[in-house]
Amino acid sequence: MTQTKIFGHQNPDTDTITSAIVAADIESKLGNDVKSYRLGEVNPETQYALDEFGVSSPEYLETLEAGTPVILVDHNEFQQSAENIESAEIVKVFDHHRISNFHTEGPLYYRAEPVGCTATILKKVYEENSLEISREMAGLMLSAIISDTLLFKSPTTTKEDEAAAEALQKIADVDIESFGLAMLKAGASTSDKSAEELITGDAKSFDMGGSTTRIAQVNVVDVDEVFERKAELEEAIRAQIESEGYGLFVLVVTDIINSNSKILALGENSSSIEKAFDVALDENSAVLEGVVSRKKQVVPQITKALS
Amino acid sequence: MTQTKIFGHQNPDTDTITSAIVAADIESKLGNDVKSYRLGEVNPETQYALDEFGVSSPEYLETLEAGTPVILVDHNEFQQSAENIESAEIVKVFDHHRISNFHTEGPLYYRAEPVGCTATILKKVYEENSLEISREMAGLMLSAIISDTLLFKSPTTTKEDEAAAEALQKIADVDIESFGLAMLKAGASTSDKSAEELITGDAKSFDMGGSTTRIAQVNVVDVDEVFERKAELEEAIRAQIESEGYGLFVLVVTDIINSNSKILALGENSSSIEKAFDVALDENSAVLEGVVSRKKQVVPQITKALS
Repeated sequence: MTQTKIFGHQNPDTDTITSAIVAADIESKLGNDVKSYRLGEVNPETQYALDEFGVSSPEYLETLEAGTPVILVDHNEFQQSAENIESAEIVKVFDHHRISNFHTEGPLYYRAEPVGCTATILKKVYEENSLEISREMAGLMLSAIISDTLLFKSPTTTKEDEAAAEALQKIADVDIESFGLAMLKAGASTSDKSAEELITGDAKSFDMGGSTTRIAQVNVVDVDEVFERKAELEEAIRAQIESEGYGLFVLVVTDIINSNSKILALGENSSSIEKAFDVALDENSAVLEGVVSRKKQVVPQITKALS
Repeated sequence: MTQTKIFGHQNPDTDTITSAIVAADIESKLGNDVKSYRLGEVNPETQYALDEFGVSSPEYLETLEAGTPVILVDHNEFQQSAENIESAEIVKVFDHHRISNFHTEGPLYYRAEPVGCTATILKKVYEENSLEISREMAGLMLSAIISDTLLFKSPTTTKEDEAAAEALQKIADVDIESFGLAMLKAGASTSDKSAEELITGDAKSFDMGGSTTRIAQVNVVDVDEVFERKAELEEAIRAQIESEGYGLFVLVVTDIINSNSKILALGENSSSIEKAFDVALDENSAVLEGVVSRKKQVVPQITKALS
């Protein structure tokens, strides 16, 4: 039988990379011939987690041949997946997102739960199958939960994520707070990134009130380090607004230590920001107290202000 | 909070009706406010199972208001679901089919496994949550497994379905063989059905080689009882071919006791049947030894012959 390929989404984050590795461990223990892959570069935060637990990064997926059996982790929407995904045979999915732009020809195993992280689901799968969790796999799952929930500060965090992390910490034998902060900091350096990289690295477009709003997010430990380059960032943002026709561009710089965000908002709809968050923009910028989740604390608010 | 509505597909069968009832039992035990519904009439086989275990049929779902939280069982494709399903909030799905024409706005709980029956998955959910299975619920799950697998004779049957039925039998305290056969027989009477009902009751269309093939299936204990009405059936089939433009119409009459099917094939593509099954049609009819599953033993074979 053909080996089954396991991978997460494009622009991989810590949950996507570690869930591919962990799902491969589960499937191997269940007697299935599988191998984990990645669809892009491993980011510094994920590399820190892999190094801490002595686990190698998955191989880069060069091509996906038609008919190959695959297991998707941490995503299901085809446009976020491997280029050739429609011609593959999707046999399993482990995910924690909405289901959209996804379909199969035959029955499959699909496991989604509305929790903060795919790893929280995978931990249950170990238990349901009475499989042992090694220190390495516990460490990777813990890293994914810390990453996706920003150390439990994101409103996407559920009690299940917290309980899973608590149990995994004991096996992984690390201190959640100190390890978690060090891992998040490893991924939060901005000094080595260009203004272009900062505004495109994690950016998504949304249709709002007849025009497109672009929202980029950067997680940092030093907000000032980013805003020292305000002029350079504004220039890059203005260039994107001009070339792409965005009605609004919001750069959300999230302070992962203090759980706030400072934003930079440009475009003809920028006044909607003042309505959305009840703040005054000062030279295109404002601090949003307690805001860390784009999905739950930024997108719905601007959508409402623009509607 | 609004009560969550649980239901299966249109033209409900035993797995769809009982899984709605069983899922409601699980959710209630987990502390959730839910109620089971049905999207159509309860068929005689299902009624036999409900009567055996003293459980009432779910209420008919009259309307589904926008925004209502719902749990889908035994299906996911919107065209098989409630009329208004796109405007509801799908919070969970328990299913054993492919995923197609399905999407949600937000994250959800989705549990699909490639097994023969939804009840086999629900039994696992009881166990994973350490919930007790009553005699009534065990009986309904056992009935669903017997129905979907035709007493383990369908090639869709997995080892998991067999193991689940074995365990459920002990709780339900019935003999699988005698109860199962009685239940299947209760649904297999054809004398009270018109020719029109026999060829439309469980019929599906498939695009094959540029034209539409219609395949209807009827489960019976007495094949001759159906073929005594061959002239009447052929007339009804020819009328459908004419009005709908089918290239081929196949009525599959499945003998649930001996696990064979006798077919009646009409239409300009009827010679493809001889190629598909390596049989000679005798007055539009042939016996297909060992064939009981339309999905696995009829559709692929005719598709190939017509391609």
